[in-house]
Amino acid sequence: MQLADLKGKTIAFLASGGLDSCTITRWLTDHGVTVVAVTADLAQPDEVNFDAVRERMLASGAVEYVAVDLRGAVAEAGLEAVQAQACYEGRYWNTTGIGRHVTVAGTLPVLRERGILVLSHGATGRGNDQVRFQLVTNMLAPDVTVYAPWRDPAFLGAFRGRSEMIDYCTARGLPIKASKNAPYSTDANLLGLTHEAGKLEALETPPSFVVPEMGRRPSEAPDGPGLFTVRFERGRPVAVDGKAVSLLDAFHAANEVGGAYGVGIGTHLVENRFVGIKSRGVYEAPGMELLGTAYGLLLQLVLDRRARELYDTLSAVVAKQIYQGYGYDLASRMAREALRPVTELVTGTVTLSLYKGQASFHSAGDAPHSLYSEENSSMEAVGEFDHADSEGFLRVLSVSARALAAAGQVVGPNRPVG
Amino acid sequence: MQLADLKGKTIAFLASGGLDSCTITRWLTDHGVTVVAVTADLAQPDEVNFDAVRERMLASGAVEYVAVDLRGAVAEAGLEAVQAQACYEGRYWNTTGIGRHVTVAGTLPVLRERGILVLSHGATGRGNDQVRFQLVTNMLAPDVTVYAPWRDPAFLGAFRGRSEMIDYCTARGLPIKASKNAPYSTDANLLGLTHEAGKLEALETPPSFVVPEMGRRPSEAPDGPGLFTVRFERGRPVAVDGKAVSLLDAFHAANEVGGAYGVGIGTHLVENRFVGIKSRGVYEAPGMELLGTAYGLLLQLVLDRRARELYDTLSAVVAKQIYQGYGYDLASRMAREALRPVTELVTGTVTLSLYKGQASFHSAGDAPHSLYSEENSSMEAVGEFDHADSEGFLRVLSVSARALAAAGQVVGPNRPVG
Amino acid sequence: MQLADLKGKTIAFLASGGLDSCTITRWLTDHGVTVVAVTADLAQPDEVNFDAVRERMLASGAVEYVAVDLRGAVAEAGLEAVQAQACYEGRYWNTTGIGRHVTVAGTLPVLRERGILVLSHGATGRGNDQVRFQLVTNMLAPDVTVYAPWRDPAFLGAFRGRSEMIDYCTARGLPIKASKNAPYSTDANLLGLTHEAGKLEALETPPSFVVPEMGRRPSEAPDGPGLFTVRFERGRPVAVDGKAVSLLDAFHAANEVGGAYGVGIGTHLVENRFVGIKSRGVYEAPGMELLGTAYGLLLQLVLDRRARELYDTLSAVVAKQIYQGYGYDLASRMAREALRPVTELVTGTVTLSLYKGQASFHSAGDAPHSLYSEENSSMEAVGEFDHADSEGFLRVLSVSARALAAAGQVVGPNRPVG
Amino acid sequence: MQLADLKGKTIAFLASGGLDSCTITRWLTDHGVTVVAVTADLAQPDEVNFDAVRERMLASGAVEYVAVDLRGAVAEAGLEAVQAQACYEGRYWNTTGIGRHVTVAGTLPVLRERGILVLSHGATGRGNDQVRFQLVTNMLAPDVTVYAPWRDPAFLGAFRGRSEMIDYCTARGLPIKASKNAPYSTDANLLGLTHEAGKLEALETPPSFVVPEMGRRPSEAPDGPGLFTVRFERGRPVAVDGKAVSLLDAFHAANEVGGAYGVGIGTHLVENRFVGIKSRGVYEAPGMELLGTAYGLLLQLVLDRRARELYDTLSAVVAKQIYQGYGYDLASRMAREALRPVTELVTGTVTLSLYKGQASFHSAGDAPHSLYSEENSSMEAVGEFDHADSEGFLRVLSVSARALAAAGQVVGPNRPVG
Repeated sequence: MQLADLKGKTIAFLASGGLDSCTITRWLTDHGVTVVAVTADLAQPDEVNFDAVRERMLASGAVEYVAVDLRGAVAEAGLEAVQAQACYEGRYWNTTGIGRHVTVAGTLPVLRERGILVLSHGATGRGNDQVRFQLVTNMLAPDVTVYAPWRDPAFLGAFRGRSEMIDYCTARGLPIKASKNAPYSTDANLLGLTHEAGKLEALETPPSFVVPEMGRRPSEAPDGPGLFTVRFERGRPVAVDGKAVSLLDAFHAANEVGGAYGVGIGTHLVENRFVGIKSRGVYEAPGMELLGTAYGLLLQLVLDRRARELYDTLSAVVAKQIYQGYGYDLASRMAREALRPVTELVTGTVTLSLYKGQASFHSAGDAPHSLYSEENSSMEAVGEFDHADSEGFLRVLSVSARALAAAGQVVGPNRPVG
Repeated sequence: MQLADLKGKTIAFLASGGLDSCTITRWLTDHGVTVVAVTADLAQPDEVNFDAVRERMLASGAVEYVAVDLRGAVAEAGLEAVQAQACYEGRYWNTTGIGRHVTVAGTLPVLRERGILVLSHGATGRGNDQVRFQLVTNMLAPDVTVYAPWRDPAFLGAFRGRSEMIDYCTARGLPIKASKNAPYSTDANLLGLTHEAGKLEALETPPSFVVPEMGRRPSEAPDGPGLFTVRFERGRPVAVDGKAVSLLDAFHAANEVGGAYGVGIGTHLVENRFVGIKSRGVYEAPGMELLGTAYGLLLQLVLDRRARELYDTLSAVVAKQIYQGYGYDLASRMAREALRPVTELVTGTVTLSLYKGQASFHSAGDAPHSLYSEENSSMEAVGEFDHADSEGFLRVLSVSARALAAAGQVVGPNRPVG
Repeated sequence: MQLADLKGKTIAFLASGGLDSCTITRWLTDHGVTVVAVTADLAQPDEVNFDAVRERMLASGAVEYVAVDLRGAVAEAGLEAVQAQACYEGRYWNTTGIGRHVTVAGTLPVLRERGILVLSHGATGRGNDQVRFQLVTNMLAPDVTVYAPWRDPAFLGAFRGRSEMIDYCTARGLPIKASKNAPYSTDANLLGLTHEAGKLEALETPPSFVVPEMGRRPSEAPDGPGLFTVRFERGRPVAVDGKAVSLLDAFHAANEVGGAYGVGIGTHLVENRFVGIKSRGVYEAPGMELLGTAYGLLLQLVLDRRARELYDTLSAVVAKQIYQGYGYDLASRMAREALRPVTELVTGTVTLSLYKGQASFHSAGDAPHSLYSEENSSMEAVGEFDHADSEGFLRVLSVSARALAAAGQVVGPNRPVG
Repeated sequence: MQLADLKGKTIAFLASGGLDSCTITRWLTDHGVTVVAVTADLAQPDEVNFDAVRERMLASGAVEYVAVDLRGAVAEAGLEAVQAQACYEGRYWNTTGIGRHVTVAGTLPVLRERGILVLSHGATGRGNDQVRFQLVTNMLAPDVTVYAPWRDPAFLGAFRGRSEMIDYCTARGLPIKASKNAPYSTDANLLGLTHEAGKLEALETPPSFVVPEMGRRPSEAPDGPGLFTVRFERGRPVAVDGKAVSLLDAFHAANEVGGAYGVGIGTHLVENRFVGIKSRGVYEAPGMELLGTAYGLLLQLVLDRRARELYDTLSAVVAKQIYQGYGYDLASRMAREALRPVTELVTGTVTLSLYKGQASFHSAGDAPHSLYSEENSSMEAVGEFDHADSEGFLRVLSVSARALAAAGQVVGPNRPVG
């Protein structure tokens, strides 16, 4: 979709209120497009001043400004990721990917109410976000078209970089926020921050170059250990340090405590973007890391070997789906349904020991669906498990092991033995 | 296999030299079995005094004592696990599982040279080790039978616990090592320590109850950060901190530095044993953790999305196979072959930052097979990747996304939107 | 569990009414065990005469005889397998595995009503059925113990084979059915027949040795083709050849038509039994094959690539779980929930062409959730899919493909080209 | 890449010799592009007359014509697919996907020898083939650019359909082959035929609309059964019906016999194309089906449960990779290496019974790596497997099954029992 297709139409633009937002809004308006600016309130830790954004967007030509309250929605979506232990390539809590799903799903009603059929965003033509905005929109509202100025030759021709945008806005007296050129770009929501691009593109820049915003570096955390206790009931955090909490409170508390101890701060990953190129990010997600770790410890108690194998498969599926913008397709629904019976079993209280960036097991209890049995586990106690039964067990296993050998299928560390 | 089947035969017994070894050896000897005691030298960090063990075993009735040098073999097997990133249930580096494979494979030649057809071990009837000893033996030497006194009613009837063994040895004047009753049991080799059983069976016992033997707790590590640089060539560590090293040296260096900084010390896991019960362990594997982390960072540079997905599948397979004692079967061979082309690509130098139990990315370079390209990754640079191409890319993806919606397959976060 | 543990107790015995049933019942009674004989009505195609079985079992010493109507339950369980396309090792519709789950789940209420705590069955000590009886019982009724005479040395010592059982029954005047020694053994229920053991154990015996009971061999099927039309709504067959049917009717109709055309008759598989040995079976499941094929064709229309991949994974999981007796554990519940959103989408009418053992696609329609679009599929039509967009699509893909090459990761069919 | 980029350059064009080839070649020549026409000899069953193609291409303006002999290469690639049992979405033997890989890999040396840096093909902008041509070229020769006229607006603008091409060629006196408008399009090589597009796009067109070219429809096959015996050694067919054969001969023989009996003729699939749309194909691959079935039967004898699970995963990976054009990337190399140890074990002779489109097990032998043991399998024989051992085996399994129940994790078919 290109500028020529938009003339005379009304579109919704996902505005952050920064330089890009002002430039794009004014540029579209100048070209005969009516712009409704929309900002999602995702409980960003840097607390967006929505009044200031409104003022800037209206001054940039938007005919209307809407701030959508999605704080509860992003917390629910974050919890789903915790319940799936859905870390992309094993490390990244997908906080931006989750946020994009929530933003689009939460913004579409704004379009619907106004009969708007175009959703526009300021993501670039190389990243993952453009994919997420597009796919989520296409799936939830197939009649809505997505317009991305940064993929439109008309816009790309007009603005080659930041300084041209500043000149453009200054010349038109737009109230752009005075900001220096950030050394990297950051996306923020309740669940975490993702830092990438700019100076972070050089592998020579160490991750410590990033200044944490949701907490402290491990080296700046307290010198003594702390404890964090969370109780889950049927997969939802219901109490933190013994005090009943809402889900949003749980994330706030976990962000605060985790951040203070340097947990989930500065996670580094060179990852595979959806479009097939490698990308480097530095991440902050103290609350996700804390709640996710506690949840994972309860899973260790609850999942038997067969359930664990399937769970791990599904976990990887969910992480990939969210990362790639497919969080609402059939495969994602299947994975979500599969996890439900597990979630129902995750009841228990976990205390984590926090120290200099690490959250580790301290104790766990009140987990009625735990499979851990001190008596069964014991190497010595007699209990249900008769040691002599193992003789039969192993004799049965021996038959197949020996059959492999007899069939010439076994190769030892160096060569066949025997 | 039971005592009655052994009378008059010569067997090989895997002896650690402790109370169990002396008791079993003497008890077998008393019942007419000829015992050759064998100890594997796995470069245990607590350095076994093989002369002392020899003396005790011969005094306990063994007709011969053999110490087998498997230091190089265990290092090679450890490297394979690093190359597969093979952590059981995502956490445990399988150090005991690896050790059991190496021990059996390295001990069988001792049996072959002497025409011995029975291998005996002191593992209990509830754990994983009995499974590993049995399966590895059955596969590599199907004509050899395994005898486990702790699954034999005759032995179980004679010795109900530790005190009866002490009485038995004392009465016979055996030179058992004066040792107090350990609060938990530990298995050790070059690659790591596994602590379990005893007081650790109670979840109330915190992991910190374990006294580290391969390093310090994170809280006791230096207050400032350290660096650890390792160079891999074709998947093998060839230099540490700029100095060329053998594989064994690399493990020793990594154990020392990792241990000093508390890395890989005190890892806690409630895991699914092969026999189907939950088990709790506290692990030390500083060198595996350090080398494994560095290797993992190179993999981030090397593996594209498709290779990453298959790699992760294989990684889980290898971890499970080693843990369960199937490290030499056909599935393990398949996984090992699959990893070879990856291993060949893992060349590069990684510097890790070490701090209070954590090893994190500091820098990486000289990786000729890296897919990371600052230019391609850049959100701004023009390079090979034309932002406008993404418009076509996304339009193609849109067709299928909209088809899903049109077919009524999409369900949004709460309900269908549209 | 052994005979000695049973004296004076009341047990439930799963009786087929054959020689084994009479022998075991009388032998147990003789040894002071009170036997309640239970037979599951699984709508076996060979129609069990329950009155005759009752008579024989009571004559053999049973104090009570119960026939449990599980026809609806086995049909539901069969449908679940169709919905999961759950064929073990790609071939076997698991009809016996399904039947064992249904039998145990349906029989346990009989035990509950009578306060019985032992369930006994006549399966041997090498097969899969003993595993299924045991695991399903242990999971659904952990306080119930399973007793298997064919694993009890007391019983094995008394009866080495068939002739001893005949002598035993004859001597006691039991009304055993006059039957010649079958050349193989067969298990039957509504969903299919499994033939194994006996002469089938020799690979030299061709599968054609088995005389079909649910239909004809392909070579005996009609010389002209037939059609079979089935309509599914939300995953359930609701009409066959245009006539509304119940689920049970659907299976009966599919068994009849499929069997007549030789579809699903004589399927051969050398499979991996749970206990680790290879086993050979010849199978009949005409209705499962017919309904399963039709269902699979609708899945081809409904599943996009991502859903297909996850579906295939789950399909293999379900097949393995049922085969191994884990159909009610957590992993099975997860898989079942995951399939639900797919099942909901499987609405459509499929006509199969039947000919000499094959059922193939003839036509399909009325499938509102189908993703197939003649217009999108077309190589020529313009439609939504702009051919020129593909240029951008492929240029994006090219970046990663070339990056692989540049990183030296590509090896051509023989050697690197370039 | 567009026409404007090509002026004055020399390109290689993959020519079939049909209407498209003549039109494209002449059109390019007219616009100042020098064209070297290349045809791959893939042992197509319809036997290309390369002299006639040469004549037509030169008459259409090509400066040179090259026929590349890839008969051996396509046979080797077909065998790899057999060894991987790599059927896309469970049905399609990927014969065109394989052919595209072979064609590009075999054609690149022609470009290299002439210093040509552009490869052009006549595939459309909606299909899979464009993806395969592009990716294989980008990977094997990243400096070579791919030009696809059917994605170039200049070409698309000039030729909207078939009649414009005929007019264009006729006006210029090009010797186009007199051909009527085919009702569907077909791609052919040694391994099989794929028919799609045209009238096949309508689901109402039954698969029987396709006229088989590699054999007969099942209904036209002989009324009596036939036998086909093939011997594999280390995964390669070495003899057919007792006569030693080369690989190419094996495919020819299998194509002939399979085709005659209707095996692998008319396979129908609605599949997911790489670009995300559903596509419908009717396939012929009698030789692949015959050799693949025989190979699969040997795999049933050779693969234990663990190897089977990994094999099935790899099989799906290979099928997807070939289908999508990623047959030479790292993931494909990994999968290929993983299969090697399996391939080495596939030695044995299989006789298939052929009847009216079906190939089924008749007998198998001389398979030294077979795990099937009549003695172990037997339900009655005593052998190695002691029935009483199963009691211990099952008691061990019971502990975990009961633990699941005790933890409230089990849900029966309707509701918890007990």
